[in-house]
Amino acid sequence: MSKTRTIIPNGFSIRKIELSDFEDVKIVLAGLTTVGPITLCTYETILNYWNSVKLMNKPSEYAYNTSVIIDDHTHTVAAIGTIFVEQKIIHDGGLVGHIEDIAVNSDYRGQKLGKLIIDYLSEQGEKLGCYKVILDCDVKNVGFYEKCNYNQAGIEMQTRF
Amino acid sequence: MSKTRTIIPNGFSIRKIELSDFEDVKIVLAGLTTVGPITLCTYETILNYWNSVKLMNKPSEYAYNTSVIIDDHTHTVAAIGTIFVEQKIIHDGGLVGHIEDIAVNSDYRGQKLGKLIIDYLSEQGEKLGCYKVILDCDVKNVGFYEKCNYNQAGIEMQTRF
Repeated sequence: MSKTRTIIPNGFSIRKIELSDFEDVKIVLAGLTTVGPITLCTYETILNYWNSVKLMNKPSEYAYNTSVIIDDHTHTVAAIGTIFVEQKIIHDGGLVGHIEDIAVNSDYRGQKLGKLIIDYLSEQGEKLGCYKVILDCDVKNVGFYEKCNYNQAGIEMQTRF
Repeated sequence: MSKTRTIIPNGFSIRKIELSDFEDVKIVLAGLTTVGPITLCTYETILNYWNSVKLMNKPSEYAYNTSVIIDDHTHTVAAIGTIFVEQKIIHDGGLVGHIEDIAVNSDYRGQKLGKLIIDYLSEQGEKLGCYKVILDCDVKNVGFYEKCNYNQAGIEMQTRF
């Protein structure tokens, strides 16, 4: 049974990312990290690529799900996040969801939209059959993710090129 | 330029996982975590699935690379590890490598094969164009990964279903 049940507040909706979100998505993700000089063509190619990667046992479902919270009045992207589902051998050919690139539009802070997108993506991972969903965060955000039903599991290590 | 240059010691070789590795792979991964009652058929389906997921801009390259270190004398799997490459929007449509499920056969401990498989998979990530490779580990293994040119980047959070 699901730990969470995503409740979308009045005035907002959640849907998968679309081509028309391009300008909004660049602005919202720029609040998170470097977006770079990505073109509309590259963006479209990425969305098509994401929709080409299916799950092994559920070929009608996608391994990547990037979803956006939309302000229904302004049609603005208020928040964004991605889950992609990794196929493993361990856990009897189990699936692990990886949540990545969570960002909330600075005009929409303080409305719990960060928790909403995490709850929503976590539910998607559970529905797709993941035995767990993981994400990496700054130390200062551990408390926030604990409120989203996550607990500390290990250390993220990186090497950059 | 690559930070590391994988040097394979005499008596060992590295190659991609194969169907014939099934029994060995189960034993080595069981030293890491629960493998479960996976069948040869499921294992074959996973290997075929991994080989169906290509990179967006390099369709001759695979998003998943599970490689094994082989003892050339006994043809045993001495170590195993996976890198899969995530396609992002950020960093101008950048790629991030995720290293997962590193395990060394208990008969081959103390031969630096853990570092060898990490160096090898990290190099594969760099060659495929990743701007970084990340992995999650126990606190007690941070020092080991630091010797592999990794540094601490954040906290891994998880939710289980």
